[in-house]
Amino acid sequence: MRERRDKCADALLPVSLSRCPVIHHLQALLREGDVLHGDSLRDRATSFWDARPMQAMCLVRPRSTAEVSAVVRLCHEAHQRVVVLGGLTGTVAGAMADASTVALSLERMNAIEELDPVGGTCIVQAGITLQRVEEALAKSALYLPLDLGARGSCTIGGTVATNAGGINVLRYGMMRHLVLGLEAVMADGTVLSTMNAMQKNNAGYDLKQLFIGTEGTLGVVTRVVLRLFPRTLSRQSALVAFADFDAVIAFLNSLRRDLGGTLSAFEVMWDSYFTQQTLAGRQRSPFQQRYPFCALVEAEGAQPAEDEQRFQRLLEAALAAGVLADAVVPKSEHERQQLWEIRENLEPVLQADPVYLYDVSLPIRDMAAYVRDVERALRQCWPDSRCFVMGHIADGNVHLFVQPQQAGTTLAQCDEMVYSPLIALGGSVSAEHGIGFAKKPWLLRTRSEAELALMRSLKRLLDPRGILNPGCVIDV
Amino acid sequence: MRERRDKCADALLPVSLSRCPVIHHLQALLREGDVLHGDSLRDRATSFWDARPMQAMCLVRPRSTAEVSAVVRLCHEAHQRVVVLGGLTGTVAGAMADASTVALSLERMNAIEELDPVGGTCIVQAGITLQRVEEALAKSALYLPLDLGARGSCTIGGTVATNAGGINVLRYGMMRHLVLGLEAVMADGTVLSTMNAMQKNNAGYDLKQLFIGTEGTLGVVTRVVLRLFPRTLSRQSALVAFADFDAVIAFLNSLRRDLGGTLSAFEVMWDSYFTQQTLAGRQRSPFQQRYPFCALVEAEGAQPAEDEQRFQRLLEAALAAGVLADAVVPKSEHERQQLWEIRENLEPVLQADPVYLYDVSLPIRDMAAYVRDVERALRQCWPDSRCFVMGHIADGNVHLFVQPQQAGTTLAQCDEMVYSPLIALGGSVSAEHGIGFAKKPWLLRTRSEAELALMRSLKRLLDPRGILNPGCVIDV
Repeated sequence: MRERRDKCADALLPVSLSRCPVIHHLQALLREGDVLHGDSLRDRATSFWDARPMQAMCLVRPRSTAEVSAVVRLCHEAHQRVVVLGGLTGTVAGAMADASTVALSLERMNAIEELDPVGGTCIVQAGITLQRVEEALAKSALYLPLDLGARGSCTIGGTVATNAGGINVLRYGMMRHLVLGLEAVMADGTVLSTMNAMQKNNAGYDLKQLFIGTEGTLGVVTRVVLRLFPRTLSRQSALVAFADFDAVIAFLNSLRRDLGGTLSAFEVMWDSYFTQQTLAGRQRSPFQQRYPFCALVEAEGAQPAEDEQRFQRLLEAALAAGVLADAVVPKSEHERQQLWEIRENLEPVLQADPVYLYDVSLPIRDMAAYVRDVERALRQCWPDSRCFVMGHIADGNVHLFVQPQQAGTTLAQCDEMVYSPLIALGGSVSAEHGIGFAKKPWLLRTRSEAELALMRSLKRLLDPRGILNPGCVIDV
Repeated sequence: MRERRDKCADALLPVSLSRCPVIHHLQALLREGDVLHGDSLRDRATSFWDARPMQAMCLVRPRSTAEVSAVVRLCHEAHQRVVVLGGLTGTVAGAMADASTVALSLERMNAIEELDPVGGTCIVQAGITLQRVEEALAKSALYLPLDLGARGSCTIGGTVATNAGGINVLRYGMMRHLVLGLEAVMADGTVLSTMNAMQKNNAGYDLKQLFIGTEGTLGVVTRVVLRLFPRTLSRQSALVAFADFDAVIAFLNSLRRDLGGTLSAFEVMWDSYFTQQTLAGRQRSPFQQRYPFCALVEAEGAQPAEDEQRFQRLLEAALAAGVLADAVVPKSEHERQQLWEIRENLEPVLQADPVYLYDVSLPIRDMAAYVRDVERALRQCWPDSRCFVMGHIADGNVHLFVQPQQAGTTLAQCDEMVYSPLIALGGSVSAEHGIGFAKKPWLLRTRSEAELALMRSLKRLLDPRGILNPGCVIDV
């Protein structure tokens, strides 16, 4: 019992030689206050979705890549499992610490290390939030075109690990396209630096790809070289309405062609979603009637007067041609924000218990029929159920919010109805949220044996002791 | 000797049980005419750069993924090395067959399997040339924004395997960004299909990345889902001149900002290059005098009249502000082609023996000084040497053409002068051409031990018998 009483009596020995608990070694390694446990964890929520206190053997907060490396090396030596935390706003239970795991947070590594306005790049530590990067760039001529609802809490490391998407993907791509280089700590503590800052670098395998979208299972991202874009100087917005989905596709494709690449958002709301979001007392619909589909459309360019005229002209032409059934252009930033509230304030569609959230992708041409089929299946199973649908359709991405309105329903039942039709369509059970723990059964059903085998091989290669986010994405 | 005389006496046995040469097994597997050897290879050049007859145990031309799989599986079983051929226009000796290797060409797998105009995607077999894809799309509203000098010969499989770059990277990214999904045959013959057709798919590890830019060392790409873009409707071009490199950067950044994302080419020619390319009897310079830097600039948009006026206005403003020293706008497609000849017809800079070609990348801010330093080192070593420089500078990419003008020089000496200064700058010895065999020594000098170890581990994991393009990129 002596080791326990003295705490760190042999914490400085190699873990393999020590009978001392891992936490004591971690305390010996890091400064006081950088290893939280017991009471000091009580104020931390499990996640954005779960207010209960975080469970973890301890939460470590290293201050440098060297410290992250030391922590991970120690855990590797001790066969100690580690769960890497980002902003805890993910929706697939990707960061699931418990009393047996070390929770690793990069919150103290939150600096912007360098901004290169000539090359259009920025080096940040992985623990910085997206919003802090945006604020730091606010006065420069550059910006990072990643935008998501969780901007205030999500960390750059988390957005890299999950290959985050969001609103501007149709123009700028996902996080994978905004990362030029990165540094990661591998499962044995080795620091792998691929801090490339050029748009082009074909010198050997592009190793950074192993750490983007792999949800912290292959390494811990510690620093990132971000690709920035020139800040746009004009913005045009409209809320438009359509009589059918063919018109939605026609308008999307005409804007892509006629706006010369400046289309930056095309957020489609099915009538179910739009009507729920604009019921009395909530955000108000600017339209006099209901339409099968509405879309919030934005373009961002560089020549305010010209861009405005062109956007207006395209709207008028689409109205005259009958492609659009209706259109509203906000006359102020305030009015614009009100339109975005309809799309982004999810309270109305979430106000029921349970609500099952989905994030799927499939070919655009199959989207309308897919949603109809899912709605039909849901009504057959649960007659009073409601299904609210919206999507970044240019990305093939649809979000569904299912309210069963019936006792005794399970997520698994709903998953079956939403996911199984995707198999024949070549769709994906996760467009942008990742797999985490929540979607693992469906990864197995929708990816081939060869794909799953290769994923497992990669996991075993990069993390032979299975200590990093174990059980997340795939079991080995 | 009986096996040799009968050729395929036991070719249908498993290779491991057979004493029959691999070529006989291959002949048993494929149709006549799909296995070329001896005389039937004599008409094939080694590569675009080497007119000598191709050396190979045999050249196999499978007609389907199943046949590719059977060929690779057979070679795996026999520990037989395989070199995958694309269009043979690569510059780094990436496809080096010899009498001991099976050369694998996908030239018979050259179909366009599907075009989805709604989703903006196209499924092609890997052996199709870039030009044939362009031709097939010519009448559609979509196009593939990959363009390189080798368009007539390079295959899509080759451009994927080398993560090709080219002229439009500053707007559309490299080949990696244009591939949504792919199918690959792995070293043991397993077919790995990740034929995703959506912009967003975060369902598990993004395995396609393993086959993009890895130069055929981890698998053979057989089919590709390409991401297409709306065909642009207007194009503006200009040849502009600058007094110094700061002005080049200022103009680049102003166009990026003020053209709202429609800038599609910014090809900078150092005076050395421009003057060599426009000597009497060759392409003619439209300028009355020499300038330190010229750039061929293009924008592509959707509104011809408006775009033209805006482009003109930006040129005039830059001339008035002294950012531009001179500017010429072509008045016809013919004139435009003449300007592109200056940039693209490499005969003038290549007319010497030897000429050493380079393709490096480095931060834009360091580019002018880097080129000056390399030129100085070259002159010190070889007083009569000439160095012609041009670059896709927005991508951080510079091409150098070095003529030593002296007997007894070696590529290795020149490499030292061109590559070693990149190390301190965080640059890359290969911006877009890859490593192949030619740049292997410099891969070892410019990537860290951790990076090299991980590359080797990946190679061993995916190709444990080392049969795929062995020795290319990295030795295991």
